[in-house]
Amino acid sequence: MLIINEKDIAAVFDANEIIAAIEKAYSLQDEHSTLIPDRAHINYGMNTLMLMPGFTNHVMGTKLVSVFPENRAKGKLVIYGQMILNDLETGEPLALINGNKLTAVRTGGVGATTIKHLAPDNVNTLGIIGAGVQGFHQQLLSAKVKPFRKIIVFDNNAKQAEKTAVEIKQHYPEIEVSVCGVANELVTQSDVIITATTSAKPVFDVNTQLLNGKLFVGIGSYKPEMTELPPEVMAAANTIFVDTPHAMDESGDLVIPLKKNIIKKEKIVPFRKLLTSQVKKSSGINVFKSVGMALFDLTVADYLYRKCLTQGMGTEIEF
Amino acid sequence: MLIINEKDIAAVFDANEIIAAIEKAYSLQDEHSTLIPDRAHINYGMNTLMLMPGFTNHVMGTKLVSVFPENRAKGKLVIYGQMILNDLETGEPLALINGNKLTAVRTGGVGATTIKHLAPDNVNTLGIIGAGVQGFHQQLLSAKVKPFRKIIVFDNNAKQAEKTAVEIKQHYPEIEVSVCGVANELVTQSDVIITATTSAKPVFDVNTQLLNGKLFVGIGSYKPEMTELPPEVMAAANTIFVDTPHAMDESGDLVIPLKKNIIKKEKIVPFRKLLTSQVKKSSGINVFKSVGMALFDLTVADYLYRKCLTQGMGTEIEF
Repeated sequence: MLIINEKDIAAVFDANEIIAAIEKAYSLQDEHSTLIPDRAHINYGMNTLMLMPGFTNHVMGTKLVSVFPENRAKGKLVIYGQMILNDLETGEPLALINGNKLTAVRTGGVGATTIKHLAPDNVNTLGIIGAGVQGFHQQLLSAKVKPFRKIIVFDNNAKQAEKTAVEIKQHYPEIEVSVCGVANELVTQSDVIITATTSAKPVFDVNTQLLNGKLFVGIGSYKPEMTELPPEVMAAANTIFVDTPHAMDESGDLVIPLKKNIIKKEKIVPFRKLLTSQVKKSSGINVFKSVGMALFDLTVADYLYRKCLTQGMGTEIEF
Repeated sequence: MLIINEKDIAAVFDANEIIAAIEKAYSLQDEHSTLIPDRAHINYGMNTLMLMPGFTNHVMGTKLVSVFPENRAKGKLVIYGQMILNDLETGEPLALINGNKLTAVRTGGVGATTIKHLAPDNVNTLGIIGAGVQGFHQQLLSAKVKPFRKIIVFDNNAKQAEKTAVEIKQHYPEIEVSVCGVANELVTQSDVIITATTSAKPVFDVNTQLLNGKLFVGIGSYKPEMTELPPEVMAAANTIFVDTPHAMDESGDLVIPLKKNIIKKEKIVPFRKLLTSQVKKSSGINVFKSVGMALFDLTVADYLYRKCLTQGMGTEIEF
């Protein structure tokens, strides 16, 4: 059995290969051979354990994610994840994979895949609102898919924005990386804007008429009470692409404007349809909203496992 | 994170300590702080993945078990298990434990705990019907709790019985170990009889009047269509002890005689009540039927983890 830890993932992953795994997940999404049961939530006091099993015609695996809100006060991470990958032919365990890093690179991959297919033709600047682990990985992967010359980072915590900007600069010395103290300015200056916060209210509010040609990628809001993108942006977009239709019930970015009748369900479209050319990108505002899906974890975990095998990475243990 | 493989478990476990962990599980069974959700079964074609999460006031963990029936023809095990143990205070992963060996020693421990509390006062001979992995571990642990002078092994596959007898003899050179070709004779000669088969019909049929004073431990039947113990034995027992009341719905040993009205529900009693002296053992036939419960896995996994830590066993990996 192969143990694939955080450092192994950081060492082996390639942004374009992660994107290929994300695209594979989209292609498997409606296949008969794909079985992704509803995520099980087990609540124990304040804490939650989530179980995310899944099967495709290639792979079988289960991600466990614990959410312990009081960890923050203890100086620990709130979320810990572990993924077990099993042989689809026999059930034998193949790998144990660090679930935090897996989630970070696959979510970065979801943003990067969106940018690959939905960004305006000539991009110059990528704007990131929210400079946590997720905001960092969004930049790390997205900067590979388009020739961005500039990245602008905003975070309510200016020190955190600065820290992330320094880290990104180390990865991309050829790109100009700067911190911006006002989210609206970041939006005005950027061609692609990724929001990666857990905000309870929209994170910017510029005039939507000035937003034509821009792409908005909403990554952070995964609960009905969280919302990052202004309802005006949702209203102005011709089409709102989603990774999974569940986003309509899970994210405040969609739940709230749907409830207020600011948008209609009909314009929420699976991103898969863009990949199969059933729907086209707009010359106006383009919007993508992700809440994540277990299928991304599966295809990316499978990719990381095979990459580690071919590169002799990870720790082989007798089990 | 600590990786605890099959060999680590074999090296560190102590039968009496496993029994203490099983007794702890019984003591936690009805505690408010214990949360054991229903086992989730996910069927993919012929194959099944089962998820068994659980919390106690001491520990949190999840056992994954795959059941691939066609593995037999491939020369592979049908069942593979993995257990992840997490810190109850933070959710951080503590250990990955080989689920097959964990299940084997904890189920052996359930049998041994039964014998500790329910065997006749003066025992001489232990009889084992079914000499697979489970039959082997039943002997391995049970021989520690009472001063058996003789073990008799029966299996439909005589070679398998012989192989297990040789292995047990290596562990207990001071005990006389023999193979018996007729299950009824084994029952007549034994004070304690453990059945560890997946038989579809009772595995012996001797005159129940001759069985007074004997203890029967049914371990193998975990489905309604499997039955090991003759209904006459169930009828003759004053009390039928079970590890969990679910046994009434899951095992043919109870489902069939209940359906045929050979026994009444009222005489099926949780084993926990014996441990708390609410029910006493009988001077006639004593019967215990186990279908297993996730709580046993949790307390035994927690014990094995702590034992490995104190003994410097297992493989510590950076995760």
